[in-house]
Amino acid sequence: MKSPEEIVALMMHKDAFSQWIGAEVLSIELGKCSLRCMIKEEMLNGFHIAHGGISYTLADSTLAFASNSRGQHCVSVETSISHLGKVNLGDQLTSIAKEIYRGKKTGVYEVDIFNQNQRLVAHFKGTVFVGEENW
Amino acid sequence: MKSPEEIVALMMHKDAFSQWIGAEVLSIELGKCSLRCMIKEEMLNGFHIAHGGISYTLADSTLAFASNSRGQHCVSVETSISHLGKVNLGDQLTSIAKEIYRGKKTGVYEVDIFNQNQRLVAHFKGTVFVGEENW
Amino acid sequence: MKSPEEIVALMMHKDAFSQWIGAEVLSIELGKCSLRCMIKEEMLNGFHIAHGGISYTLADSTLAFASNSRGQHCVSVETSISHLGKVNLGDQLTSIAKEIYRGKKTGVYEVDIFNQNQRLVAHFKGTVFVGEENW
Amino acid sequence: MKSPEEIVALMMHKDAFSQWIGAEVLSIELGKCSLRCMIKEEMLNGFHIAHGGISYTLADSTLAFASNSRGQHCVSVETSISHLGKVNLGDQLTSIAKEIYRGKKTGVYEVDIFNQNQRLVAHFKGTVFVGEENW
Repeated sequence: MKSPEEIVALMMHKDAFSQWIGAEVLSIELGKCSLRCMIKEEMLNGFHIAHGGISYTLADSTLAFASNSRGQHCVSVETSISHLGKVNLGDQLTSIAKEIYRGKKTGVYEVDIFNQNQRLVAHFKGTVFVGEENW
Repeated sequence: MKSPEEIVALMMHKDAFSQWIGAEVLSIELGKCSLRCMIKEEMLNGFHIAHGGISYTLADSTLAFASNSRGQHCVSVETSISHLGKVNLGDQLTSIAKEIYRGKKTGVYEVDIFNQNQRLVAHFKGTVFVGEENW
Repeated sequence: MKSPEEIVALMMHKDAFSQWIGAEVLSIELGKCSLRCMIKEEMLNGFHIAHGGISYTLADSTLAFASNSRGQHCVSVETSISHLGKVNLGDQLTSIAKEIYRGKKTGVYEVDIFNQNQRLVAHFKGTVFVGEENW
Repeated sequence: MKSPEEIVALMMHKDAFSQWIGAEVLSIELGKCSLRCMIKEEMLNGFHIAHGGISYTLADSTLAFASNSRGQHCVSVETSISHLGKVNLGDQLTSIAKEIYRGKKTGVYEVDIFNQNQRLVAHFKGTVFVGEENW
């Protein structure tokens, strides 16, 4: 059975888009994960703030790592995100996932995203299926 | 008062991330919008399928254009997405937004995303605030 | 294999709370359902309009009947509702469920609720698990 | 300016449906609220467990009290609930709302619902509009 660190290393290795956003793993434990990334020019939208898709991508990767860390393959079923503060060029975002619920077949996770001033900029909730295959 | 086409042209012009995903406007009308993009290598995740953040980004841009097309600035409050089918390298995604509700202060929109075989791969719902500023 | 009508008759028979809200089945087909109920005094909240829990209950029952109509036991995983218009004492609500997606393991349904003036008062989305047991 | 206790007393006074489910206020503070109710026969569905509408109603009332406790009228915009465990006849449910975010125009709250064995049976998220009228 692989450790959370080994599983996330395997997942990150070929995850081209998480690499594109510059996601770094700050911490990984059973059911928990924290990532970080920095906002660059290509991530901005027409209002010159970060596109909502960037926070979503960071949160979705954090969910994937936290939920898969327990050793079983998990896939996202339904996810929602509230954008609560503007994210600007050069901001450093930190995501923190926690496990709300983990059953045999489903899990529910929340991810908070903070900027470098510890302001909450997005709140994400994700439901995953717990598959039968193991890492 | 600007037309939906003029508003979306203004929004797309500086929207670096919608440009990065290669979003093209297929159609834009009052309260409606359709976009298209193609999946490239950088958009894949560790399972070698498109990262959920790509469908979310396409849907979120479609929501932004559809809701702003009526002339008032709109910002997303809460969005959710269900990923319903795998999206592969080279797939061409088409998003279609429709207006479920438009009130004085809020609007609710849905976006369906189909692949090139007309298979539904994601379903998105977004609630926006209708601001007081006009385009 | 039971028909959609037989399954819903079985489900409604002992569904005390759907009965308490006065839910009537207007139509039931594979993956579709429509219900109706009327707003009474006990359903009002402190603003003297219907409590949000009434529309939710009507939508959730409509989801249950629509998703179970295909013959396999389905249970709700995640549901969301937007309350879009006030519901008053004496209003007659009609719910209409449609199937957005039906896979082997999950299904996604939407339920619109209209009042007697055909005004949309709530929009609901529900994700269900498709179980292995049959009706 | 009224206190959280005074506001909730005003809201509960005429809230017929919260009274019907037997909701009792366990605690109320700025941005926080906890309620309790017991599951009776009329609240069951066709599977002889509590209808999802009961947990939703309890959570939605808890959201309403927590968000209005700050003195401004708040109305729910979008709410979602995950049903995580079965709720049986005679179970005593306790809801606990916390404030995730409170801005000038919107607020985001979460409500956890536990049974008498401290098992999490539902997790709810609600976004509210902060109105201009005060209590």
